[in-house]
Amino acid sequence: MAGGDELKLLGFWGSPFVLRARLALSFKGLSYEYVEEDLKNKSELLLQSNPVHKKVPVLIHNGKPVCETQVIVQYLDEVYGANGRPSLLPVDPYDRAMARFWAAYIDDKLLSSLMMMSMGKTEEEKAEGRKQSSGAVETLEGALKECSKGKPFFGGDSVGYVDVVLGGFVAWVRIIDRMTGLKIFDSSKTPILAAWLERFGSLDAAKAVMPDVQRLVELSKMRQV
Amino acid sequence: MAGGDELKLLGFWGSPFVLRARLALSFKGLSYEYVEEDLKNKSELLLQSNPVHKKVPVLIHNGKPVCETQVIVQYLDEVYGANGRPSLLPVDPYDRAMARFWAAYIDDKLLSSLMMMSMGKTEEEKAEGRKQSSGAVETLEGALKECSKGKPFFGGDSVGYVDVVLGGFVAWVRIIDRMTGLKIFDSSKTPILAAWLERFGSLDAAKAVMPDVQRLVELSKMRQV
Repeated sequence: MAGGDELKLLGFWGSPFVLRARLALSFKGLSYEYVEEDLKNKSELLLQSNPVHKKVPVLIHNGKPVCETQVIVQYLDEVYGANGRPSLLPVDPYDRAMARFWAAYIDDKLLSSLMMMSMGKTEEEKAEGRKQSSGAVETLEGALKECSKGKPFFGGDSVGYVDVVLGGFVAWVRIIDRMTGLKIFDSSKTPILAAWLERFGSLDAAKAVMPDVQRLVELSKMRQV
Repeated sequence: MAGGDELKLLGFWGSPFVLRARLALSFKGLSYEYVEEDLKNKSELLLQSNPVHKKVPVLIHNGKPVCETQVIVQYLDEVYGANGRPSLLPVDPYDRAMARFWAAYIDDKLLSSLMMMSMGKTEEEKAEGRKQSSGAVETLEGALKECSKGKPFFGGDSVGYVDVVLGGFVAWVRIIDRMTGLKIFDSSKTPILAAWLERFGSLDAAKAVMPDVQRLVELSKMRQV
């Protein structure tokens, strides 16, 4: 980090979007001040830093706020891309486009189907969510095969942008598995992705910021009441 | 354009998302083959090039497909960013983050409220859409003031990423105005944005690819039946 650089992250421990920012900071080996927000009583700093959405995560870099999870991750990658720190986005423009495409897919298709599956109001809605999740996971299996080219991560030999974006959901995938008894990343149906999940979750830089699964289960139960 | 480069765009004349890609190509002065798709009978090339979403726009660059409108625009900017061609995204990482933030805002908030306003199934839904659109446009007025720093475009002196992303909607804003009798970019409420709309729409590179408003009105009426 450049001398005098000050990084602060406003977050909430249970947010997968905040987790992405923390994963990016962690994989890039950046030190920062983490400020936990009370979402029922948001701080003045949060409201001033993100007046449009009033949401976490917000990264504050030398007093200047950056909002929205994918914007934050790309910003960190652009500011701290050199000096021996790992890059998350690939160098080649076509590979970058593919990474952005799959990151958008995860937010558009995987997220909405997981939400429907776990928070659906009726059994029909939950069943539809399961069906769509299953389809999205199979599509991602193909993407991982294509992007990784036989290597362990979407980013190849090391963690990249799509790994971080999908990695934000790792703990949630586990709690949905635990709460529903289903396996979303099933090793018989999507073996490459199931192996990725284990591999990613066992990295030190990921474990350092990953929330506790039992605590997430409790949060999730509270929200369903 | 590098010698031997082949650019092809699969599109539909009435899509604001396709228009963004055409605007980017036009502002960058790139020549390309435009292929109009029949969305009721999609070509094999479209289905093969975008097997995940099966949607336009798809940019095919030397045989390799790039899908999703914002991904395409960023790809074009990265591949054709040098050699005197105008850059759409700013150079400074913080300004780039701001541009990505507002581009996401346009897709998340402005688009959904305009859809609700013009395609809502009930009068209440349409009224709620009008209210939300009005709020989103006021927020964008502030963004334009901040990003442009008194210059004519979001990108400053020349058209940038946010201009292209918002520019995709220029013709649609005009038809919604015409069909509903409302002014979405009202010069009394949001004078900077209203002036931007006129300025952007009158640029030769925009006019060259902008669809005919009367034809769009007819398309829009057909879709509401």
